Amino acid sequence: MEIHSKVRIKDIAERAGVSVGTVDRVLHGRTNVSELSREKVERALSELNYVPNHYASALASNKIYKIAAILPMHEVDSYWARVEKGLEEGLQRYSDFKISYQIFRYDPFNDNSFEVQTQLLLEWEPFAVVIGPIFNFNIMSKFVDKLDLAEIPYGLIDSNWPEFNPVAFYGQDSIRSGEFAARIILMAAASSKKIALFKLMGEGRVASRQQLNREVGFRKYMEEHSPDTEIVELSLFVYDKAGVKERLKSFFTKNTDIFHGVSFNSSIHTIANFLKKEMPRHRHVTLLGYDAIDANVACIKDGSVDFLIAQHPMRQGLNCIRTMINACVLHYKQNRNHYMAIDLLTKENIDFYKD
Amino acid sequence: MEIHSKVRIKDIAERAGVSVGTVDRVLHGRTNVSELSREKVERALSELNYVPNHYASALASNKIYKIAAILPMHEVDSYWARVEKGLEEGLQRYSDFKISYQIFRYDPFNDNSFEVQTQLLLEWEPFAVVIGPIFNFNIMSKFVDKLDLAEIPYGLIDSNWPEFNPVAFYGQDSIRSGEFAARIILMAAASSKKIALFKLMGEGRVASRQQLNREVGFRKYMEEHSPDTEIVELSLFVYDKAGVKERLKSFFTKNTDIFHGVSFNSSIHTIANFLKKEMPRHRHVTLLGYDAIDANVACIKDGSVDFLIAQHPMRQGLNCIRTMINACVLHYKQNRNHYMAIDLLTKENIDFYKD
Repeated sequence: MEIHSKVRIKDIAERAGVSVGTVDRVLHGRTNVSELSREKVERALSELNYVPNHYASALASNKIYKIAAILPMHEVDSYWARVEKGLEEGLQRYSDFKISYQIFRYDPFNDNSFEVQTQLLLEWEPFAVVIGPIFNFNIMSKFVDKLDLAEIPYGLIDSNWPEFNPVAFYGQDSIRSGEFAARIILMAAASSKKIALFKLMGEGRVASRQQLNREVGFRKYMEEHSPDTEIVELSLFVYDKAGVKERLKSFFTKNTDIFHGVSFNSSIHTIANFLKKEMPRHRHVTLLGYDAIDANVACIKDGSVDFLIAQHPMRQGLNCIRTMINACVLHYKQNRNHYMAIDLLTKENIDFYKD
Repeated sequence: MEIHSKVRIKDIAERAGVSVGTVDRVLHGRTNVSELSREKVERALSELNYVPNHYASALASNKIYKIAAILPMHEVDSYWARVEKGLEEGLQRYSDFKISYQIFRYDPFNDNSFEVQTQLLLEWEPFAVVIGPIFNFNIMSKFVDKLDLAEIPYGLIDSNWPEFNPVAFYGQDSIRSGEFAARIILMAAASSKKIALFKLMGEGRVASRQQLNREVGFRKYMEEHSPDTEIVELSLFVYDKAGVKERLKSFFTKNTDIFHGVSFNSSIHTIANFLKKEMPRHRHVTLLGYDAIDANVACIKDGSVDFLIAQHPMRQGLNCIRTMINACVLHYKQNRNHYMAIDLLTKENIDFYKD
């Protein structure tokens, strides 16, 4: 097999038996092409191993692209810090273009902070926006409407919203993710008939749609496969850090027959570390949580957390930027939905997980 | 944050406080640089977000790079077909270079066929080689010695050999992979104390070091965590396809108390399909195998296989080519060992696995 380095538009047109203009329209994803011509061109592209180069023309425009991100606040090294790292690495890969980049951060449990930050974002007049969505549909809608009105394209990360029209969504299928979590913890629980569900709450709800829907998938799987397993909920309040310890102590003292627990956000290390420090003689509790953040990885290594489900936050950020630039700067056609792998991490395989 | 598009060698030298020549030596991975200067340059590179471009100079050379691959034969869509696809996609990404590519295929259970094919490969006088290793150390050594003598760089895929000096290895850590497999099947087996181990044999052995070492990891985990679980082996002979059915029938008829089984290669669908067709009223056997090849994926979807461990064969091929070209054509420093993720696939998450 010889790899041909340069295929000209003319070669493609000849091979496909269409005009150069038609090839150009297909390459730029325009709509005024017949289905038959499009197929011919696509077959010719594939047969000629065509590698397109829109870079040159985009570079020549010399435009400055202002890209904004609006994301939940995070502590250093949390899930969202990884998303941010991915966004920055994505931008780095397009450093041939003149890109100006700004992040706006909001408190995921405070709708007002989202409104304030998105207002600042809009005043910055971005070319495109990456959104880590807030939970509330109405608040999200108001922001997305403004973007649509100003014709500013946007991408969604983490939580999917079928109601909106982003250029791209990157994140897990949350229902399936919850079903997978259920399958694993149920297998670990075997004969045990009670499983704890730890929920990190603020303003009477969890932090994201993604977390909410994981619980939906989890309960669905349980109902289908083990309806007699009792799911015992414990809510922990993000604004009441002091109270967390007391609530956990009372929970494990009361529920002496619970030895399995799950959490649908990245805070499972809180439960594991509580058990190690405050109840060191308690029987081993098999814990499943989300996200390979440092605090969780440490618990996997010392055996206090058994399972993590990883969702490649860095890759979400990196690929979202890539897709946004491919779509909005280079005018390639892109798919809307990009579901991330649902990866199980244990002590045995965690060293080989790459975000 | 502003992304700077063009950083000159001069800028790096100024920032690092070293000469332009020193920067050049670090960028090309040469050795005659003091540790202190190297650190200074690397810090400056990182601070300036330097994106190197060795492409231009490599392109200018106008050389034709002959790249050969020697791989086990495969049916369409097997594990090695995915590796091949990855190699081809990798080459495609470097289509700016003039690359000539040839694959040589050998029978993994026939040492002589390896010797014949590698002889043909050497006569082709490749610039670099990608190897899917044969099991036998002496046969491998003889080939690798010839490559070393001719100063032909090579990469290893799938099976690692610490004794050799490839530019890069891509594949799983086989011991850990076996430990992970043991953890999952043991968890599924719960109170059951017998697990079947199905081995696809040819010439009195399995097909690769990778498979051999997975069994080592598996048995190690079992010994540590469940020493009273009995591992019941069944060998199936690759050259005796007709005999496979008889051997399976006799195995399941005899071992009426085995409801869990593993296989360390991609042939678990053979067991699942046998049970569906030949023993449809047999109690469900929970099966764990390797590789998301089509035949296995179909069994995951219909529930006859419960678990697959995936090892990203396409990515192995793609990244091996990338590393070989980065090292041998572009003269970037590259790491030797690249361990692939050890990913668990079930009915719930298999749709989101991307090789």
